Amino acid sequence: MKLGVLLYPTGYHVAAWLDDDVPADAGVDFRHYVEFARICERGRLDFLFIPDSLTVRGDDIDALSRTAIRYVAQFEPTTLVSALAAVTEHVGLVCSITTTYNEPYLVARQLASLDHISGGRAGWNVVTSMNEWEAYQFGFAKHPDHATRYPRAHEFVDVVKGLWDTWEDDAFLRDKESGIFFDPQKFHLLDHEGDHFNVRGPLNVARPPQGHPVIFQAGSSEQGRNLAATCGEVIYTAAPNLEAAQAFYGDVKRRAEELGRSADEISILPGVFPFIGRTQDEAEEKHAHLQSLIHPEVALSLLAGELGEVDLSRYPLDGPVPELPESNAGRSRQKLLVDLARRERMTLGDLARHVAGSRGHWTVVGTGESVADELEEWVRGDAADGFMVMPPNLPAGLEDFVELVVPELRRRGLYRTEYEGATLRANLGLRRPEHRAAAARVGIG
Amino acid sequence: MKLGVLLYPTGYHVAAWLDDDVPADAGVDFRHYVEFARICERGRLDFLFIPDSLTVRGDDIDALSRTAIRYVAQFEPTTLVSALAAVTEHVGLVCSITTTYNEPYLVARQLASLDHISGGRAGWNVVTSMNEWEAYQFGFAKHPDHATRYPRAHEFVDVVKGLWDTWEDDAFLRDKESGIFFDPQKFHLLDHEGDHFNVRGPLNVARPPQGHPVIFQAGSSEQGRNLAATCGEVIYTAAPNLEAAQAFYGDVKRRAEELGRSADEISILPGVFPFIGRTQDEAEEKHAHLQSLIHPEVALSLLAGELGEVDLSRYPLDGPVPELPESNAGRSRQKLLVDLARRERMTLGDLARHVAGSRGHWTVVGTGESVADELEEWVRGDAADGFMVMPPNLPAGLEDFVELVVPELRRRGLYRTEYEGATLRANLGLRRPEHRAAAARVGIG
Repeated sequence: MKLGVLLYPTGYHVAAWLDDDVPADAGVDFRHYVEFARICERGRLDFLFIPDSLTVRGDDIDALSRTAIRYVAQFEPTTLVSALAAVTEHVGLVCSITTTYNEPYLVARQLASLDHISGGRAGWNVVTSMNEWEAYQFGFAKHPDHATRYPRAHEFVDVVKGLWDTWEDDAFLRDKESGIFFDPQKFHLLDHEGDHFNVRGPLNVARPPQGHPVIFQAGSSEQGRNLAATCGEVIYTAAPNLEAAQAFYGDVKRRAEELGRSADEISILPGVFPFIGRTQDEAEEKHAHLQSLIHPEVALSLLAGELGEVDLSRYPLDGPVPELPESNAGRSRQKLLVDLARRERMTLGDLARHVAGSRGHWTVVGTGESVADELEEWVRGDAADGFMVMPPNLPAGLEDFVELVVPELRRRGLYRTEYEGATLRANLGLRRPEHRAAAARVGIG
Repeated sequence: MKLGVLLYPTGYHVAAWLDDDVPADAGVDFRHYVEFARICERGRLDFLFIPDSLTVRGDDIDALSRTAIRYVAQFEPTTLVSALAAVTEHVGLVCSITTTYNEPYLVARQLASLDHISGGRAGWNVVTSMNEWEAYQFGFAKHPDHATRYPRAHEFVDVVKGLWDTWEDDAFLRDKESGIFFDPQKFHLLDHEGDHFNVRGPLNVARPPQGHPVIFQAGSSEQGRNLAATCGEVIYTAAPNLEAAQAFYGDVKRRAEELGRSADEISILPGVFPFIGRTQDEAEEKHAHLQSLIHPEVALSLLAGELGEVDLSRYPLDGPVPELPESNAGRSRQKLLVDLARRERMTLGDLARHVAGSRGHWTVVGTGESVADELEEWVRGDAADGFMVMPPNLPAGLEDFVELVVPELRRRGLYRTEYEGATLRANLGLRRPEHRAAAARVGIG
């Protein structure tokens, strides 16, 4: 079983910052992230994962002023994980970087550098942005639609991988005797000319220790699933229940196989939003406590954001969820939530509080043993290869997982006791990509 | 006196990597940089400075294959200094970032994040790129000329500073009692619409601890000096001798004053390329040893690069320096070098070896005492406010400076014994910029 941790500054729960035990300043105080990373290493977790939006998500300033998440103000992921690389030894470091408002050359260079700094622990969560406000930072009047973003994303990833293969693994001789620093035969230009990018190369960073940093992807739309199936190695998804997870799992593995990949080249990690206690009552109290801290205005604003920034203010909280206009951003998420409300007969207010808490993710509330039971069921039931753990509050929610669930998974032989390898790729059991020129030379590629 | 250290992976001397005591793999092994940074802190140096080019400088692959510098393969500066931030406490961390091939929003965000991670030790060396090959990574057929690059750079810096003022310093209340995370009155959009950029804001990182990370600049052309005078706070320059340094110093301070700035808002730090021994003979041996390791092909290729990628292969090494075509990249450097060769009656080969060693920087060869004499003369002679120390070889050249020159400067009362402040800005004696809205409110701005 593979386990990563998704780190929002105060935890995934929207009201976590209001809890007395949660430091509210983790968005500006790096020492908290050092602590989170060390807890991950104590649990021998595969990686920590920094979600991102280039700017504040939403423009409801009053609701935003009551939240510590929604990307209001926190560390930029690449700088954050680079700093964490220097004070950790084993845990993978995965940062989200959008392909919509970046240049592949700059991204390839920073990720290659991070992979060297961390000794092969870099991962890249490929995102295409989903927020109208991101466009306004780059001179665009509106956010480009799916049909524009995804072809660019495919080409972007291809260019980045190509640049990582500028140098063969053994290009640098550093031979003081002969005076030859590198072997010119093991240096390759890219000469990419495509629809979105013309990039000649070379990248001036040596080939990353992992060959290529691990590619993460989280799209759930049609185009997102195709991107995941094409280049994703670890797929993070929101699946509210076992059936939804099984359907997603089967679908993405099938798409990958249709593209000529082996199903086990892709690991699928649904998010799990866990409330863990030494008893069931304690777990339920933890959940009820955080839910009770949610402000109604925050809940409604979050729901509007998840539905694609629709205006919900004119609908009564105790009435049904209204019919909604089609939205460009996060189309698949909208459908998921509306279906849930219809199925469970939730009012708009019920759905708002539910969304504000879990935002579409699978919520589990239980003891180490019962949570391990549920995780095991998903892994054995072809719904997951592991999980993206989303601690509701930090650091306590992460400590609970490491201290109560991980030992139980170990007892069942489902999780490691020590890291197997030195790199994220090795720990995830992923193949290290051959250099394309070296592979061609020995007849592999 | 202000002192920074310019870090090339194996040292500034082109042949440093060939020296037995120099680790040749500092471009991929982060632990060496940790050591360099710790030596800087032992010497209480103000900052370390990472020069940069987005890609390999030059396309003479055979000559390049004999060098460890020229940006062949090394860490990307932002990721590198972010990692160093986590393992240092005092030293300033300055990274070069070009305004020609970046977006101001992304740069503002990374630097603000770095400033938080480092507790207020970030500096940004604003560069405009000087290398034709950088253009080829971004779909451009050629590198834009001075007249295009510099107006963009001015606007870029303005946008970045404006984004750093999204949040007032005390915007984040994090008040668990009232449930208010931030004060909406202390949040400001930028709404910039300019010739090169339209950027609405907000930046989703809290205001940096320093208000604004310190702005470094190193242009020496007419446009470069104007950029320095407009927004530079620390100016790094190549001045081969006292007279050249005095002329540059007077000129840039005058330009700044004409723009309404006070002369002491700008510190001018010429590069110094020091060979230091316990005796004069030892220092001269160190210099001669590294010069002796320079390969003739490398020397000629470097000279061609410094002159703006002109083709020198058809001129004899023992003949005079030929007349050269005007070049777009590094125009002022070309003039400086040709003037030097004419004045000192150097052959092409002499100039090549000289350039390969010092690349236009002031070379000093002496004991701690005699080097301190020279530095003191420049500072007292209105030629410098301090220096950018460019250790020829690492770590030994940096250790020599910290162990032999710094104590001598202290004995003369010219250099600190302990860091005065917690931030780079405080240690450099620079004013912390008021937030524009806060300043307006209290009648300062």
